[in-house]
Amino acid sequence: SFSRGMQTVTLIPGDGIGPEISTAVMKIFEAANAPIRWEERNVTAIKGPGGRWMIPPDAKESMDRSKIGLKGPLKTPIAAGHPSMNLLLRKTFDLYANVRPCVSIEGYQTPYTDVNLVTIRENTEGEYSGIEHVIVDGVVQSIKLITEEASRRIAEYAFEYARNNQRASVTAVHKANIMRMSDGLFLRKCREVAETYKDIKFTEMYLDTVCLNMVQDPTQFDVLVMPNLYGDILSDLCAGLIGGLGVTPSGNIGANGVAIFESVHGTAPDIAGMDLANPTALLLSAVMMLRHMGLHDHGNKIQTACFDTIREKKVLTKDLGGNSKCSEFTAEICRRVQDLD
Amino acid sequence: SFSRGMQTVTLIPGDGIGPEISTAVMKIFEAANAPIRWEERNVTAIKGPGGRWMIPPDAKESMDRSKIGLKGPLKTPIAAGHPSMNLLLRKTFDLYANVRPCVSIEGYQTPYTDVNLVTIRENTEGEYSGIEHVIVDGVVQSIKLITEEASRRIAEYAFEYARNNQRASVTAVHKANIMRMSDGLFLRKCREVAETYKDIKFTEMYLDTVCLNMVQDPTQFDVLVMPNLYGDILSDLCAGLIGGLGVTPSGNIGANGVAIFESVHGTAPDIAGMDLANPTALLLSAVMMLRHMGLHDHGNKIQTACFDTIREKKVLTKDLGGNSKCSEFTAEICRRVQDLD
Ligand SMILES: CC(C)[C@H](C(=O)O)[C@@H](O)C(=O)O
Ligand SMILES: CC(C)[C@H](C(=O)O)[C@@H](O)C(=O)O
Repeated sequence: SFSRGMQTVTLIPGDGIGPEISTAVMKIFEAANAPIRWEERNVTAIKGPGGRWMIPPDAKESMDRSKIGLKGPLKTPIAAGHPSMNLLLRKTFDLYANVRPCVSIEGYQTPYTDVNLVTIRENTEGEYSGIEHVIVDGVVQSIKLITEEASRRIAEYAFEYARNNQRASVTAVHKANIMRMSDGLFLRKCREVAETYKDIKFTEMYLDTVCLNMVQDPTQFDVLVMPNLYGDILSDLCAGLIGGLGVTPSGNIGANGVAIFESVHGTAPDIAGMDLANPTALLLSAVMMLRHMGLHDHGNKIQTACFDTIREKKVLTKDLGGNSKCSEFTAEICRRVQDLD
Repeated sequence: SFSRGMQTVTLIPGDGIGPEISTAVMKIFEAANAPIRWEERNVTAIKGPGGRWMIPPDAKESMDRSKIGLKGPLKTPIAAGHPSMNLLLRKTFDLYANVRPCVSIEGYQTPYTDVNLVTIRENTEGEYSGIEHVIVDGVVQSIKLITEEASRRIAEYAFEYARNNQRASVTAVHKANIMRMSDGLFLRKCREVAETYKDIKFTEMYLDTVCLNMVQDPTQFDVLVMPNLYGDILSDLCAGLIGGLGVTPSGNIGANGVAIFESVHGTAPDIAGMDLANPTALLLSAVMMLRHMGLHDHGNKIQTACFDTIREKKVLTKDLGGNSKCSEFTAEICRRVQDLD
C-alpha cells in the first residue's frame, strides 16, 4: 500500500556518534521498506570567494536537488570566527521555522506525563542577527532585528501547522511589555494572522509566564510560536520535560518543501564508535521527515515500533535506563517494524 | 537577645491583595517583636517636570531615608506610555541586583524536591535598555546594551552573595555563542571576578542548556548569575519548580544597603479584599529583608514558623491546598512565632 517511487534524502551523518545513529536509522528505514534513497554528504564549513563561510558545494548541490535533509549532530566549531554549521545550514536554505514536537513517551519516566506540545521558533532573525558593536570602550550593543515579513511568515506557519496537525490552539510567546516595538511587531503579526484562522484558538503570553506555567503544568500548552532566542530556550526546556535531547525530534522548515530534520543533542565524543549511542532523537526526526514527505504510514509504523520498544523496557540503551547496545536497540525496532506489516 | 533599636522600613502595600498580605506581614512581625517601624507609602507614577514619569516624592523621600522597602504587587499600567512601576522603582534607586532564592518547601508538593538555588539577575540594562527603532517600514530593532561596569558589578555581587551565604558555586548563564560581543563581555567580567574568589567554584553554561538541565535536575544548581532578560525568564522558571510566585521571595538590591524586597506575584483582583490571599511570598521577602538588615534571629524565627505551618498542612490558604482564610493562616504563623520564643 506504500508509494513505490523512491525519493532522495540528503543524509548528513555528522560527527561523534552521528555515523552510528545514522546507520541505525537507515537500517530501520530498510526494515520499514521506506522508499528513501540516501545521498550521504559531509558538511564542514569551507571558505568561499570573498572569504565567506559556506557549506561544501556537493552538500549544497545535493540538498538543492533533494530538498530534504536528515542530519546528525555536528561538532561545535573551535576556531574563532568559524561559524556554527547549524546556523549556516539554516541560513543557506532559509529554513525559517524550527519545529519541535515534545510529546511524553510512555514508559520513559520524567517528572511530567501527558506533555503534548509543539514549539515553533522563528529561525532567521531576532537576537541571532549577528549585528553587534562596541559603542565606546566597555559598552557593547547587540541588535535584535524583527521584521514584519519574517513575523508574518512564522505566524502563518504556526497556524498552518496547527490546522494540519489537528491542534486546537496557538500561543504567541513574547516580551512586548519590555520590547514594545520589536516583540510588539511580532505580536501584531501573530494577531493579524490569527484573524484568518478562526478555527484555531489564539492566545498570547509573556515568556517568563510561559516558563513558570510550563514547569507547573505543561499539559496546558499546545502550539507555541515565538522569536528566535525565546524558541532556543523554550524548545530545550520542553525537551527536558519529556526526557531530554536524546528523545526529542526537530525539524527546520523552509519554503517550497525544503527542510532539514535533525537530532539536536551533542556529538557525545566520549562514547562515539562504541555502539552505545541512542538513535531515538534522529529516528523520530526521520519520522517527522517521512510525514513531511507525505509518507505517513511509514512514519507511523516506525514511530510505533520505537515507542513500543521503549515502553517494553527490555531492549534499551544506557541513557534510556537499559544496558543494550545501539545495534541491539536498533534490531529490536527493526523486528517490531516488520511485525507491524 | 534581639536588638532594641527600631529601624524604619518603607512599606508599599500595593494593589489588589497587596494591603491584606501587607497587614499579615505586619502582624507576624509584631508577634515576632521585629524591631521595625513601618512607613506606609503609595506609589503611583506621576508626571514630573519635563513630562518624565517618576514615583511620588513622599515615597521617594521615605525610601531615601529608610533605604529599605517592602513592596506588595502593583497593577500593571494600562495607559499606553505609562511606565511599569516595578521598572521605575528599580531605576530610581539603581537596584542593580535581583535576587531570588528558590528553595523547596517541605510539605508543599511539586514535581521536584531539594531545590536549593538562587538566581541573581542584572537588573538595570541588557534587553531592558528601552532603546528601539523602526529602521524602515516593517523592520524594527531593539538594542541590548551590556556594559563592563554593570557586568562586573553583578558578577561581584553574585560571588559576594555566594561567599556570605555559604554557597559553593556560581554559574554564569549566557548565549555568548550567539551574542559574542555583548554576552561575551558579560562572561569575561564573570571570569575576571571569579579569579578573585578562589573559594567559590565558577562554571559557565548556555541559557538553553541551563533550562534543559534545570527541569531535569534542578539540584545540580547553586548560585546562577545572568543578564537581565535571562534572569527574568530563569527566575520565573525556578519559582515554578518550588510552587510558583505565591511562595517565592525576591529582593532588589542597590548600592550602600538600599534594597526593595517584594512579592512578584500579581494583584489577584478576583480575590482582593476577601481575606483569601496567601501572604507567603511577601512574608518570605520580608524575611530576606530582615537578614539584609542583620536581623537574622527574627528572620529565622518567622521563616521557621511559616514553613512549619505549611508542613503541618492544618491551616493553609486555598492556593496552598487548604481552606483557611488569610487571617487564619496569619494567626497560625503568629502563634508559632510566639511559641518559638
Ligand atoms: C548550536 C546553537 C547555535 C543553537 C542555537 O543557539 O540556536 C542550538 O542551541 C539550537 O537550538 O539549535
Ligand atoms: C513586570 C515586568 C516588567 C517584570 C519584568 O519583565 O522584569 C516582571 O516580569 C519581573 O520579573 O519583575
